[in-house]
Amino acid sequence: MPTTRANVVVTPGGQAALFATHAATCDAGDTALFIDPYYATYPGTLRGAGAVARSVAATPEHGFQPRARDVAAAAGGARSLLINTPNNPTGVIYTEDTLTGLAQVCRDHDLWLISDEVYDTQVWHGRHLSPRALPGMAERTLVIGSMSKSHAMTGSRIGWIVGPEEAVEHLINLSTHTTYGVPGFIQDAALWALERGKPLEDEIAAPFRRRRAIAEKLLKASNTVAAVPCDGAMYVMLDIRATGLSGEAFAHALLDAERIAVMPGESFGRAAAGHLRVAMTVDDPAFADALTRLVRFAERTAHAA
Amino acid sequence: MPTTRANVVVTPGGQAALFATHAATCDAGDTALFIDPYYATYPGTLRGAGAVARSVAATPEHGFQPRARDVAAAAGGARSLLINTPNNPTGVIYTEDTLTGLAQVCRDHDLWLISDEVYDTQVWHGRHLSPRALPGMAERTLVIGSMSKSHAMTGSRIGWIVGPEEAVEHLINLSTHTTYGVPGFIQDAALWALERGKPLEDEIAAPFRRRRAIAEKLLKASNTVAAVPCDGAMYVMLDIRATGLSGEAFAHALLDAERIAVMPGESFGRAAAGHLRVAMTVDDPAFADALTRLVRFAERTAHAA
Repeated sequence: MPTTRANVVVTPGGQAALFATHAATCDAGDTALFIDPYYATYPGTLRGAGAVARSVAATPEHGFQPRARDVAAAAGGARSLLINTPNNPTGVIYTEDTLTGLAQVCRDHDLWLISDEVYDTQVWHGRHLSPRALPGMAERTLVIGSMSKSHAMTGSRIGWIVGPEEAVEHLINLSTHTTYGVPGFIQDAALWALERGKPLEDEIAAPFRRRRAIAEKLLKASNTVAAVPCDGAMYVMLDIRATGLSGEAFAHALLDAERIAVMPGESFGRAAAGHLRVAMTVDDPAFADALTRLVRFAERTAHAA
Repeated sequence: MPTTRANVVVTPGGQAALFATHAATCDAGDTALFIDPYYATYPGTLRGAGAVARSVAATPEHGFQPRARDVAAAAGGARSLLINTPNNPTGVIYTEDTLTGLAQVCRDHDLWLISDEVYDTQVWHGRHLSPRALPGMAERTLVIGSMSKSHAMTGSRIGWIVGPEEAVEHLINLSTHTTYGVPGFIQDAALWALERGKPLEDEIAAPFRRRRAIAEKLLKASNTVAAVPCDGAMYVMLDIRATGLSGEAFAHALLDAERIAVMPGESFGRAAAGHLRVAMTVDDPAFADALTRLVRFAERTAHAA
C-alpha cells in the first residue's frame, strides 16, 4: 500500500505523537499495553491520554525481545500495544520473528500497534523492519517518527505519525485542538534536512557507530560486565548482575567514586533490573575512558563482594 | 498574591494551553462550560480533553456579556468555565460587574475559571480586568496567554498558563507527557519580544486601533448595519438582522457579489446568529473600501427584501 500525504500528520515532536496516538486509539479506562523496559515517559503518557497502562516484560533471558505469548496473555481489554525498535534503553532491534508474532497478536486481539521507530536511522547490526509493512498491519499500525535522533533536532520538537488515512484524519482534527500545528519554519528546516537524504542521516549516526565499536572492543575482555548486543540506537546496555549490586546501587556508587553518570536499568522498568544504560553521547576519548573506568569499578566491586 | 515562575507553564501556543487546562481540570465525562459565541476550536478542545462541552449563551440583547444567573443555571455537574475577554468574535470586553458575577458563580459551584486573555493588549475602550485578580479567584483561575495576537507571533506557537502553584506542577507534568516542551529558540524569541514591553505591544496593536476608528466612522451612518461596540480584540461584529438575512446567507451573498469574505456569526454559535465577524486584518484602504461596500450591499439587500 503506497504511503501518501494522506497517511501523515506532523506533530510537535515524537512525544506529542506518542500522546496523540494513545488519545486517538484509547477511550478513558481502556488498557494500553507497553513493553518493559521502556522509555521514561511511556506509562505517564498512556495515563495522560486516559488509558490504563499495562506493561509486558521483555526479559534479558530472551535478549529483551518481547514474546508474543506474553503480550497475548496481557491483551484482555486492551486497545493498543506500544513497541519501540530500535529500542531505548536496550539497543536491541526486534527480529522479524518477534514482529511477526506481535503482529499476529494485534490482529487476533484487534489491537492498534503503535510503533515508535525514532531510532530507525541508527542500525548497527541486522536490519530495522517496520511492522507497518507486515501483512494486514498497515490498517492497524501507527508509526511514530521524529527528527530528534535521526537529525539531532531534539530542540526543534518535530515528529510525525504515519497511519491509515481515516485515523490520520482524526489525528489531524486532534492536532488542531491540542496544538494547532507545528511552526512552518521548523517544518521547512525538517524538510531541508530530510531532502539531504541518507548521507546526512549517516553523518549524524556516525559518532554512535564509532562509539558502539569502542564499547564492543572494551567490553569483550570483561567477565564482570556483559554488554547486551547493541544492534541499534545510541545506547549500550550493560548487565552488571555479576557485581551483586542492583543497577541503581551501582549507578550511585559509580557516580560517587568515578563521577560517571549512567542510568540504572531499574529506571526503565523492572525487566532491566541489574543493568545500566550507557548513552553514547560523549566524545570518543571521554567515552572510552569512562567505559574503561566503569569496567574496572565493576571488577573491583565484584571482587570486594 | 505575587505571580512567580512557579505559577507559569510555557505551552506550544494558546491552543495547547486551552487543551491542557481542560485536560487538567476535567475528568472524562465531567461537564466543561463555555460561552456562546465562542472561538471555533472551543467545543472540540473541551471534548478532546474528555469533557462534555456545555454552552451558555451571551446574547446581543445583553451586549454579549454573559450573565451570572445563566452560568449558575448551567453549572450542575460542571467542573470548569471557559471565558474569553477581550472577546473573539464579538470585540466585547467583559465588565467588572460581569466578571465579579462569574467569579461568584465559580466560587459557589466550585468551578475552575479558565480565562482566555490572548487579546489583553488590544483594548480600545474601557479596561481589561483579569478575573485572577478578583478576591478568592487566584486559587481557582487558570489564565491563558499567547504571543500570537500581542506580538503577531502566531506562527511560532508559543503561549502560557498562569495559575496556582499546585496546578502548574501538574500542568508541567502533563506538558512533559504531551509535548515535552517548547523549542528554546522560540522561547528566546518570545522573551526578546516581551522584554521590549508596552511600546512593541502598542506598535502591534496600532493598525487594529486605526481600523477600529475607520469602522466606527463608516458604520455610524448606516441604519441597516449596526456595529456591536468594539472595545477590544481585532474584530468588529456587525448586526445585520435588519437585512432579513442570516449571517450565513449574508456572508455567502457578499462573497458572491462583492468578493468580500467575512465570518458568519453562526459559525461562532447560535448567540451570534444574524451577525458577521469582520477581521480588521487587511490594510487600511482595503478595509475601508470593503466595509463601505459591505454596508451598501446590506442596504441594497434590505431594500430589496
